[in-house]
Amino acid sequence: MPVSLGELAVRYGCELRGDPDTRIERVATLANADGRSLAFLANPRYRSRLQDTRAAAVVLSRAAAEECRTAVLVCENPYATYARIAAILHPLAALAAGVHPSTVLAASARIDPSAQLEAFTTIGADVTIGARAYVGPHCVLAEGVALAPDVRLVARVTLGPGVEIGARSVLQPGVVVGADGFGFAPEGGRWLKVPQLGSVRIGADVEIGANTTIDRGAIEDTVVEEGVKLDNLIQIGHNVRIGAHTVIAACTGVSGSTTIGKRCMIGGMVGFAGHIRIADDVTITGFSAVSHSIASAGVYSGTLPAEEARTWRRLVARFKRSASVAARLRALERAAGLISAQDEDHD
Amino acid sequence: MPVSLGELAVRYGCELRGDPDTRIERVATLANADGRSLAFLANPRYRSRLQDTRAAAVVLSRAAAEECRTAVLVCENPYATYARIAAILHPLAALAAGVHPSTVLAASARIDPSAQLEAFTTIGADVTIGARAYVGPHCVLAEGVALAPDVRLVARVTLGPGVEIGARSVLQPGVVVGADGFGFAPEGGRWLKVPQLGSVRIGADVEIGANTTIDRGAIEDTVVEEGVKLDNLIQIGHNVRIGAHTVIAACTGVSGSTTIGKRCMIGGMVGFAGHIRIADDVTITGFSAVSHSIASAGVYSGTLPAEEARTWRRLVARFKRSASVAARLRALERAAGLISAQDEDHD
Amino acid sequence: MPVSLGELAVRYGCELRGDPDTRIERVATLANADGRSLAFLANPRYRSRLQDTRAAAVVLSRAAAEECRTAVLVCENPYATYARIAAILHPLAALAAGVHPSTVLAASARIDPSAQLEAFTTIGADVTIGARAYVGPHCVLAEGVALAPDVRLVARVTLGPGVEIGARSVLQPGVVVGADGFGFAPEGGRWLKVPQLGSVRIGADVEIGANTTIDRGAIEDTVVEEGVKLDNLIQIGHNVRIGAHTVIAACTGVSGSTTIGKRCMIGGMVGFAGHIRIADDVTITGFSAVSHSIASAGVYSGTLPAEEARTWRRLVARFKRSASVAARLRALERAAGLISAQDEDHD
Repeated sequence: MPVSLGELAVRYGCELRGDPDTRIERVATLANADGRSLAFLANPRYRSRLQDTRAAAVVLSRAAAEECRTAVLVCENPYATYARIAAILHPLAALAAGVHPSTVLAASARIDPSAQLEAFTTIGADVTIGARAYVGPHCVLAEGVALAPDVRLVARVTLGPGVEIGARSVLQPGVVVGADGFGFAPEGGRWLKVPQLGSVRIGADVEIGANTTIDRGAIEDTVVEEGVKLDNLIQIGHNVRIGAHTVIAACTGVSGSTTIGKRCMIGGMVGFAGHIRIADDVTITGFSAVSHSIASAGVYSGTLPAEEARTWRRLVARFKRSASVAARLRALERAAGLISAQDEDHD
Repeated sequence: MPVSLGELAVRYGCELRGDPDTRIERVATLANADGRSLAFLANPRYRSRLQDTRAAAVVLSRAAAEECRTAVLVCENPYATYARIAAILHPLAALAAGVHPSTVLAASARIDPSAQLEAFTTIGADVTIGARAYVGPHCVLAEGVALAPDVRLVARVTLGPGVEIGARSVLQPGVVVGADGFGFAPEGGRWLKVPQLGSVRIGADVEIGANTTIDRGAIEDTVVEEGVKLDNLIQIGHNVRIGAHTVIAACTGVSGSTTIGKRCMIGGMVGFAGHIRIADDVTITGFSAVSHSIASAGVYSGTLPAEEARTWRRLVARFKRSASVAARLRALERAAGLISAQDEDHD
Repeated sequence: MPVSLGELAVRYGCELRGDPDTRIERVATLANADGRSLAFLANPRYRSRLQDTRAAAVVLSRAAAEECRTAVLVCENPYATYARIAAILHPLAALAAGVHPSTVLAASARIDPSAQLEAFTTIGADVTIGARAYVGPHCVLAEGVALAPDVRLVARVTLGPGVEIGARSVLQPGVVVGADGFGFAPEGGRWLKVPQLGSVRIGADVEIGANTTIDRGAIEDTVVEEGVKLDNLIQIGHNVRIGAHTVIAACTGVSGSTTIGKRCMIGGMVGFAGHIRIADDVTITGFSAVSHSIASAGVYSGTLPAEEARTWRRLVARFKRSASVAARLRALERAAGLISAQDEDHD
């Protein structure tokens, strides 16, 4: 649905430099935009591309506007403004309310008439599905699941007993919420399964990426608060709580009973030990091991970047020989008369 | 199904301090238990909560019993005893034996009449399904799959040709057992697929977490022995063998042809190289890279815990400058007359 | 389908030492082969097994041929030759062309009559499925998906809108191609979803392992070029490009907008930062963090191998005390009169 630049400027509070009657049909990258396309610049890394773009207009900040030869929509937050415009230029398909005839539906389930259920879904006893919810093909909703209005299960989502999903949340294909947590009691050299009796509560406006798993609590619920965004292939253990508006990148694992605060930013492939507490507003860089609680906001890291392999092997060899460095330092300090009793305890 | 404390004490060999007629209806955490609830204390970290709990009774060890003001069930292994009691207070739904009419069933499959098959499962040729097995919705069982009695496929489990699952094993949603192993022969700058002809044998009493994958062997079978517990999002490569009663936490990957011993405890996000051998009774802490075989029981680690980012950057910078440390040490040793020919070889 | 050694020698250009009329029925490992089996030796680690094998014949290189007492098929590339022979001895089941009656099929989809669609698949509008393609049970093909000839979706594969899969590519169970990329714009302490409008193009002869996820591009397409082999549980972010004939082992994650070159070999559990560029012919060892672009071919590593835990704890303690090493070195250098102004800047 094409929109004029003037309309976009008014609707999103942008300053327009250019012809308000130009009609925009789609979004595009700076490099590949044409005269019907809107592009945006949010990442300064791509600023040089402003010079050559053929876009009808570009959404950008005041600072970058001078460098652009095309029409521009100037705003405070170009990425957010772009996101809003892209959503109206490229809307999701409208819902086709109703339940596909292949659905296996418990008699006690309550489905809002404005919801859409696609083929091959199974809906257990006492499930409730809110207004305008979309349940894509091959979803499994066990007994007692509750979907708030406007939830979107893209396809092949599995929700265990009693799982609650807040309004407008989006779950990508392959997501499993509410599988049993990993609880086993050691007994005589074997492991006895501990029944996992809690469930999972997901707040509003949460996004969960493809093939991510969130386990049900052992006794009480695992909780993901509103506005959390989880990427693909993430593991959230039982009894975890993730604070509102925290984002976690792909392949990260959070062990059981750990609490992550609000507005955290967690990189990809981060591992969290169990039973720890991460404060609000913590940033953790990708590929870090978080073994201990973090009590205050800030940036934390455990990332050791790869090197050319020969260099790396020498670094590792030296690292593993650090005892000899310590011993040699002590010998030198002794020889130089610099050593104190305290230093002798060091290693 | 409520049970009296007296009955629980007799049944599980506990010493009861309190009224044997008190009836228990459910389990709860120490913090949230009420007068109908049973709580437990296994992790000493939560011992202070004993003071305030309103539980009807608490399952705990002799050492902790004095600190608790409520009725107590004293036993050797409170976590295991709790697990048993929780299982009878909160039993799984009884099976509804029979095959859902939507099932696509090969004529040659043999399904025990006491088994339950839910909606939208596909059952290939020569599949056998044992007594009281549960096949949840959306499972795919390829030709020749064999489920022993009391197996439980929670939902959306995919089993490749010839996969065998031992008695009482539980597979959570999204598990894939028996996909092709990662075998490709290099040839002229391309990769030629090597047919994966083995299958996977899973022993009795195994648990496999959500979205975990276990590949079929290249020629012979990948093997997971009895009592193994695998968490979510784990990758087990082709030709791997995992010894009995080993537990592996989430996001760990085991490369092809590696053997892990019995009764090992493997943390989350551990990576195992291929073609190595890990002894029995090995513990590996989370986020470790295991590049070489481990010949004897013990605890192994490669976890480098994250730090405040500024501190970390300095640590990494020093690590990468370790050649200069070595050179400076040598210069000092030379100046001090401490150096030997041997040391000169060090770096 | 049994084949004679003579026939195999002619067909695959091997030198045969042994009776050309011996008939081979199957492949087997050196250790378990019998008189109807063909074995192979590609990994020198298993060379000693040549002595005892009872195989009818072994495929191996000229160098190893002398050590084998059975008939041998001598060739340049024993692993590739073995792969070809295994494929004819153990062929895939022939396709049963046609569409299973349970399929939910959009009227505008075009299915080649030689293709096979198994039970419980959903095929969206304008999907095209090429000759001899196999769509296993429980696959979801959203609108506009295009499968080239001879594609094989083993089971439970989910393809988002517009995804293209090249000829002969194989997707294992649980794969998700074309879920939304992880794009959110920060705005007032919340995250606003950025519509993900691109799709994914997968080239010919690609293999994608179980439960691997490949996200759709934000505006343009995520691209996996021909001949790429991806193992299980891999995450490929939006706008990534993976060059032809690159192989990636399990549990690796590639963040958004990163480009990996052609013919790279990436180990398991490697993490790539976003917006970086990896050259052609790069090898990266398993469990490495790749934070920066790599401009030239070669081997790169960031793997820190695990140790016995007590040793490891001391190594980590020393690593974290490296500031004190630096200070002590400086003190020694000062005492020895070796220090220069430059060195003082080091830490």
